[in-house]
Amino acid sequence: MTGRFEPLDSGAVPRYAGIPTFMRLPQAEPAEVDIALLGIAYDGGATNRVGTRHGPREIRNQSSLTRRVHHVTGLSPYDRARVADCGDVPVDPMDLMRTLDLISAHYAGVKTAGALPLTVGGDHLVSLPILRGLASDGPVGLIQFDAHSDTYDSFFGNSRYNHGTPFRRAIEEGLVDPKRFVQIGLRGAISDAGNYDFAKSAGVRIIFIEEFVERGVADVMAEARAIVGDLPTYLTFDIDCIDPSQASGTGTPEIGGFTTREAQQLVRKLEGLNLIGADLVEVAPPLDPSGLTALTGATILFELLCVLAGVVDAKGAE
Amino acid sequence: MTGRFEPLDSGAVPRYAGIPTFMRLPQAEPAEVDIALLGIAYDGGATNRVGTRHGPREIRNQSSLTRRVHHVTGLSPYDRARVADCGDVPVDPMDLMRTLDLISAHYAGVKTAGALPLTVGGDHLVSLPILRGLASDGPVGLIQFDAHSDTYDSFFGNSRYNHGTPFRRAIEEGLVDPKRFVQIGLRGAISDAGNYDFAKSAGVRIIFIEEFVERGVADVMAEARAIVGDLPTYLTFDIDCIDPSQASGTGTPEIGGFTTREAQQLVRKLEGLNLIGADLVEVAPPLDPSGLTALTGATILFELLCVLAGVVDAKGAE
Amino acid sequence: MTGRFEPLDSGAVPRYAGIPTFMRLPQAEPAEVDIALLGIAYDGGATNRVGTRHGPREIRNQSSLTRRVHHVTGLSPYDRARVADCGDVPVDPMDLMRTLDLISAHYAGVKTAGALPLTVGGDHLVSLPILRGLASDGPVGLIQFDAHSDTYDSFFGNSRYNHGTPFRRAIEEGLVDPKRFVQIGLRGAISDAGNYDFAKSAGVRIIFIEEFVERGVADVMAEARAIVGDLPTYLTFDIDCIDPSQASGTGTPEIGGFTTREAQQLVRKLEGLNLIGADLVEVAPPLDPSGLTALTGATILFELLCVLAGVVDAKGAE
Amino acid sequence: MTGRFEPLDSGAVPRYAGIPTFMRLPQAEPAEVDIALLGIAYDGGATNRVGTRHGPREIRNQSSLTRRVHHVTGLSPYDRARVADCGDVPVDPMDLMRTLDLISAHYAGVKTAGALPLTVGGDHLVSLPILRGLASDGPVGLIQFDAHSDTYDSFFGNSRYNHGTPFRRAIEEGLVDPKRFVQIGLRGAISDAGNYDFAKSAGVRIIFIEEFVERGVADVMAEARAIVGDLPTYLTFDIDCIDPSQASGTGTPEIGGFTTREAQQLVRKLEGLNLIGADLVEVAPPLDPSGLTALTGATILFELLCVLAGVVDAKGAE
Amino acid sequence: MTGRFEPLDSGAVPRYAGIPTFMRLPQAEPAEVDIALLGIAYDGGATNRVGTRHGPREIRNQSSLTRRVHHVTGLSPYDRARVADCGDVPVDPMDLMRTLDLISAHYAGVKTAGALPLTVGGDHLVSLPILRGLASDGPVGLIQFDAHSDTYDSFFGNSRYNHGTPFRRAIEEGLVDPKRFVQIGLRGAISDAGNYDFAKSAGVRIIFIEEFVERGVADVMAEARAIVGDLPTYLTFDIDCIDPSQASGTGTPEIGGFTTREAQQLVRKLEGLNLIGADLVEVAPPLDPSGLTALTGATILFELLCVLAGVVDAKGAE
Amino acid sequence: MTGRFEPLDSGAVPRYAGIPTFMRLPQAEPAEVDIALLGIAYDGGATNRVGTRHGPREIRNQSSLTRRVHHVTGLSPYDRARVADCGDVPVDPMDLMRTLDLISAHYAGVKTAGALPLTVGGDHLVSLPILRGLASDGPVGLIQFDAHSDTYDSFFGNSRYNHGTPFRRAIEEGLVDPKRFVQIGLRGAISDAGNYDFAKSAGVRIIFIEEFVERGVADVMAEARAIVGDLPTYLTFDIDCIDPSQASGTGTPEIGGFTTREAQQLVRKLEGLNLIGADLVEVAPPLDPSGLTALTGATILFELLCVLAGVVDAKGAE
Repeated sequence: MTGRFEPLDSGAVPRYAGIPTFMRLPQAEPAEVDIALLGIAYDGGATNRVGTRHGPREIRNQSSLTRRVHHVTGLSPYDRARVADCGDVPVDPMDLMRTLDLISAHYAGVKTAGALPLTVGGDHLVSLPILRGLASDGPVGLIQFDAHSDTYDSFFGNSRYNHGTPFRRAIEEGLVDPKRFVQIGLRGAISDAGNYDFAKSAGVRIIFIEEFVERGVADVMAEARAIVGDLPTYLTFDIDCIDPSQASGTGTPEIGGFTTREAQQLVRKLEGLNLIGADLVEVAPPLDPSGLTALTGATILFELLCVLAGVVDAKGAE
Repeated sequence: MTGRFEPLDSGAVPRYAGIPTFMRLPQAEPAEVDIALLGIAYDGGATNRVGTRHGPREIRNQSSLTRRVHHVTGLSPYDRARVADCGDVPVDPMDLMRTLDLISAHYAGVKTAGALPLTVGGDHLVSLPILRGLASDGPVGLIQFDAHSDTYDSFFGNSRYNHGTPFRRAIEEGLVDPKRFVQIGLRGAISDAGNYDFAKSAGVRIIFIEEFVERGVADVMAEARAIVGDLPTYLTFDIDCIDPSQASGTGTPEIGGFTTREAQQLVRKLEGLNLIGADLVEVAPPLDPSGLTALTGATILFELLCVLAGVVDAKGAE
Repeated sequence: MTGRFEPLDSGAVPRYAGIPTFMRLPQAEPAEVDIALLGIAYDGGATNRVGTRHGPREIRNQSSLTRRVHHVTGLSPYDRARVADCGDVPVDPMDLMRTLDLISAHYAGVKTAGALPLTVGGDHLVSLPILRGLASDGPVGLIQFDAHSDTYDSFFGNSRYNHGTPFRRAIEEGLVDPKRFVQIGLRGAISDAGNYDFAKSAGVRIIFIEEFVERGVADVMAEARAIVGDLPTYLTFDIDCIDPSQASGTGTPEIGGFTTREAQQLVRKLEGLNLIGADLVEVAPPLDPSGLTALTGATILFELLCVLAGVVDAKGAE
Repeated sequence: MTGRFEPLDSGAVPRYAGIPTFMRLPQAEPAEVDIALLGIAYDGGATNRVGTRHGPREIRNQSSLTRRVHHVTGLSPYDRARVADCGDVPVDPMDLMRTLDLISAHYAGVKTAGALPLTVGGDHLVSLPILRGLASDGPVGLIQFDAHSDTYDSFFGNSRYNHGTPFRRAIEEGLVDPKRFVQIGLRGAISDAGNYDFAKSAGVRIIFIEEFVERGVADVMAEARAIVGDLPTYLTFDIDCIDPSQASGTGTPEIGGFTTREAQQLVRKLEGLNLIGADLVEVAPPLDPSGLTALTGATILFELLCVLAGVVDAKGAE
Repeated sequence: MTGRFEPLDSGAVPRYAGIPTFMRLPQAEPAEVDIALLGIAYDGGATNRVGTRHGPREIRNQSSLTRRVHHVTGLSPYDRARVADCGDVPVDPMDLMRTLDLISAHYAGVKTAGALPLTVGGDHLVSLPILRGLASDGPVGLIQFDAHSDTYDSFFGNSRYNHGTPFRRAIEEGLVDPKRFVQIGLRGAISDAGNYDFAKSAGVRIIFIEEFVERGVADVMAEARAIVGDLPTYLTFDIDCIDPSQASGTGTPEIGGFTTREAQQLVRKLEGLNLIGADLVEVAPPLDPSGLTALTGATILFELLCVLAGVVDAKGAE
Repeated sequence: MTGRFEPLDSGAVPRYAGIPTFMRLPQAEPAEVDIALLGIAYDGGATNRVGTRHGPREIRNQSSLTRRVHHVTGLSPYDRARVADCGDVPVDPMDLMRTLDLISAHYAGVKTAGALPLTVGGDHLVSLPILRGLASDGPVGLIQFDAHSDTYDSFFGNSRYNHGTPFRRAIEEGLVDPKRFVQIGLRGAISDAGNYDFAKSAGVRIIFIEEFVERGVADVMAEARAIVGDLPTYLTFDIDCIDPSQASGTGTPEIGGFTTREAQQLVRKLEGLNLIGADLVEVAPPLDPSGLTALTGATILFELLCVLAGVVDAKGAE
């Protein structure tokens, strides 16, 4: 592998110094990397409390605390793949439909460039145009860590594109195969007893937090891996899957969520799947006075990066 | 059931809009409802850090995030009972003894009106006048989720009515049957080795957090249910039973408390008891810069509401 | 005058208790009042930092601190006019153009009902649909206290309706007479040297903060009063006209603004004008950790209310 | 003068180190000093938002930043008088009337010991028992810097002793000579048009902020000095006289107040008066996330200390 | 035991009143006590985010909430040992090497005086000079609760003394016996795959969080006790071993740490070891807006105090 | 002028998106620009509260709100000079003396490259090595806006290089001509009556805030301009010259400072001087929960940039 990118050396430049990029990595174009770290500073899909438009910038800031080698595997993602900060995706804060088009076009370009995208949102609606850009060869599998199903049909009478609907749209548009779609960690009161009917009837597997607590990480993830199999799969991580004690800075927090220990174990169990990209969404810095949510997000981002680096490494070894 | 009340539809009116009532419910009088949501904006019983006078207002605010159907049971409390925001109980912030009388008179009226009161404090002293209002037919059972016993005799030489004494007074006054009284989650350093002597000798069952951790939710709650039996029982939930990682905005936080997962399970195990009311106390918004404590409180309030709605529903079915 | 409304008596009910309405007033319909306090919980017009959707609720909360008699005039607005909290105006958070229509229809109704609207935003775009609702009889005069001109043509290529454009649209649509339009307090770096060209060529009078500091409140307001004359005039108060030391909780703060002393004097000098309504916009609670911006907003709201009550009183005396 | 006390030398011990006493002074008994710095950690007199019980501790903390020589006079109070931290006055947080007695007894003792008390509150009610302790030889003069008159008769029907009433009680009890009483900086809406009637009819001189702005510091203070004359006079400084931009951490902030520049000038103009003590009240740390209010309070405390040191110095020279 | 010291009685003086010492204890010299509570207000060893210089003062403040009897053992440390606040250790904030000498000299003095030191940092570098002061009779055992190993060689090219290196220096200097050194709770990404090589090759036992989660408190602590045996042992508790949900106010937080329940159990399992002192380090108040980290620190400090009191008690009984 | 750099167009990319550089400018080397924006993330010179090491990053963040044209002059600095973000200067957080050398070498390089440096600190000590780098041709003039003189001799016995001493060192080292050195805005208590003796005897002109308030901006700046004359002059702006109501996030705030209106006027009066560079120091983000201090700093930075651009423009015109 040539053209490797490395984070700034914190032994030379203190972690609080310098212009904050993701993981203190160099900036580059998707065509130059194996894994493109991308921000989507957009929260026009939020139906309630906003602020995730500031997510990419604050996660860049907090990711300065992230070191380079995973302490369990002893491996560094930067040794296994070319990784860089590929900047923020173009959006139009005043035009939701145009923004969806801008994003999907951008991700089609990332795919063409041959990079795996690892995205920081933004609200959860951004997963829809990402999937539009990536799933051009047919429906993909999907693993969703989340407190909410995000398979509503519409809000406010006529809003079909918002952060409560992306995965219903993705199924309807043939971007996601509902039989290869698993949602883990759902919880919290719902607006209507039929809220999960669409997902269930489409064949989506929903694992509520109560079932997760009963069964544990290993058992649940074994099932999840069986559901998506070896085919191309996307991973979406909504920060609100984590308990608000570590991630209160989000628009619709729900108590009783994953501990970060569990969240880290969940992500580590993705190793070896055929992932085509991943996102981390719904971090809202204005609702996060201590900065802990962004720190949690940055650390999960590193775990996701390590998993994607394994995908690159495995491909390189083929 | 006629005259059902429903929260504002968040699909029509965004959750951040409108005048904040509990659960975005209509305002009504106790005589119009089965369950009366009430605030007591009073913290004159606090011996240390204050601020719970702002609890009802901020929990109203955060409760706007609460949806209408419990995701485990699939039931909505608003389908099972008439529920409304019955406003704040009259208090006199400058006169503790008068406030006790104002509160107890108000709850006697709620009882007469036939509504089950679900109260948001205020400091823990408010449970005493509530019990005075409700236990006019003889001592009731009591389940207390709390970090502290609140059975001190007095403070500062002569203060017999404060948030460290309500349940000693309640036993002394014949409002609570100490043999049907269980305290769960107690922990933290104590002022004196004899702090629990009164409660123990009176027959109160104390389950410290260490015992709880050993035995788990199901075992502990089976015992608690056996202790209170089928007779009328009151439920008091001090937010400081929950770990400060989710509820630091309270006057006397103690580390090592319930996770919210555990707290939710504890409350759910109350289903089917003969409850005559419940309260949630000690949320202190000025000590809660992120708002997480109030959010936790609002979510527990919804769990309590679901349990009380079951009581109403069962009675209606008789 | 019959049917007078009064704030809750703080000598009976403490200011922190009860469900927070504007000024702790009763809720009523526009047809029942002379002055309708209205919230618009919408920030879809913000091009940069958001959060003003939470403005109406937090200003309701802080307005509980506001007493009933103006200490300089010795008059109470509640003695001079029927005033109530008329709730939040319907909006669709996911659809800007629909929201504009919802708002303008609502204000047309308020006008028909015969009430003067006093509105709390929301971002500054909301002034446009308010004017559409109110200026149906021909262009009105406009006094704008603001740090920015808000007469841009468009943003992001195609966004013609956002919080940087309302007053260009209002002139183009014939809602505001540019010859009877004065902007006071403008300051701060601009995107382009021609930013003020449209306003200036249309005949709008711009008084920058530097000119204001030179001339003082009395002189500037004498000119402003001459500009709008005796004809119907609308008043818009962007909280960012005030210095960030008292109002940092707003999306685009600019240092060097009005002190609150000056702002109060400016508003008091509106007495006697032929005002058809007023608004206070751009308070963004998530950016206001101390709550000071909302308190400032609530106090200015009271000053505006006193001025509008004078309009009602004068009409009643005719 | 023997037994001088000096603040810890910040050139030897950093300002953030060590146990925080007022001004980093030694602890001593009133009998050992000329000026006794005292805390009253009590807010039972607050009718609205509480938290000033934490005032003494946080002002001790912030006063660590205060150096020893006044830069205008070139004099150090510690060279002119023996000054020490005499600790917190006994209070009973659960019993207002007992607290009033505890405080007045304590100040009678301070007077007997021959020390001038400089007190940090606590809410404004504490000035009443201080005056009871100090004015045992007949009514004293009073200069009050404040946003509010604090001469109400009662609240909530029967509360005659709270932070809105101390100076009416002081006049009624013959502690203060209303003809030698001046209030400076009053402003803000009032509950009733007759709010100032008692004070005015008793002969108290009220200088509203509007008059102050017109006349300036020098003119106003010349009048104030003439009013109190050479006879014994007490000084009370409510932090809410200062604009909330520098002192938002208080229970009833009012915009449009003194700048700190003005406040410093006002205090400096007290030089040479026959002061028998002073207090600084109403700093509420839980409402002051940035700590700025406590810092402002600590700096004003130093200005007051310099004035009192001048009184001591002048007496020593007689 | 004579000359016992007791915390201020909170039944007489409210917890928020008075000058804040550790545990509200009297101030005394090391020679007067069995256990000396000491602060080291120094963070010159921090390589990244600073602020722990404010740790001693804020932990003193929060420790006012700590009561006197351990609720599990029913014992009070103040009955078993003479304990006092012995103030802050001299440091030179501008000279790291001089500070190391000042600290080690101070602890040599504490040792000579016969007191066990219980220290509140400051950054983790302070453990090195403490060990220099205490381990003059040969290498001691060490139990370290921490997220990081702190056995780096150097930073920034030439910095051999910082908070990432103290325990490598301590081993090199013969202060700690690496065979009697156990580190518990390590986790988080590392700078280099060889980061743990020095510690491992020296014989230090590292128990990562993953192993801890597998085995549980009892099993891990049995091993730790076996490793250090009966010989003199020091205990160092870095607050960042605790999960950021309870301790985010620290320079290098790592998600996935100990719950406070676990942390309390870990400390309780130290009972009976031959401890020569302990420290609690890395609490950074400026990064802790809610104060929760300092509260957690103060509570752990009480647990450590109880363990050290047991050491004193056992010695007294010999 | 070729190779002009422009900020990102906020009409195309929202202000909250993208990697934050100063003013959203491109990154470049000093040799490519006329004015080099530089950060120095170092606070090892702080004797009291720290945190200014985070200044450059947070000012970069807040400077995203800054637009491109000065509204008074109608000129854009980017039209008059090539300006870019030249990154952070190398420092060693663990070695003060080495850091001084690293900084001075860097600024010697900037001077050689022909760029005017505009620096964001960091604590005020950084001005010393900057002057070492720039004043290699003989002593320069100096205008200092500050609350403190920073001409102490030493702290803690032996610290001669810290943020209280830079300008005494600069005079001693012949970097600054004391006869061409003016300090404006000094105030606040001092440690010793002789604190200003060195500066005064060396010929430095000190204008205290009291004199400034008497005379006003125009008069004071006329004198300042006369003092430095037409010869090369450096400008240093300590954020604590501004009143804490707009800049509380700094290590040693002093009430009674410049309003931002005054500060802006002061900077604008520098137009036309022979400036060789400027710095803005002492912004401490961890002490600035609302972000207002950094916003104020960013806005002043823009004013300074406009003045320096005028210097470049004038030279180009020669």
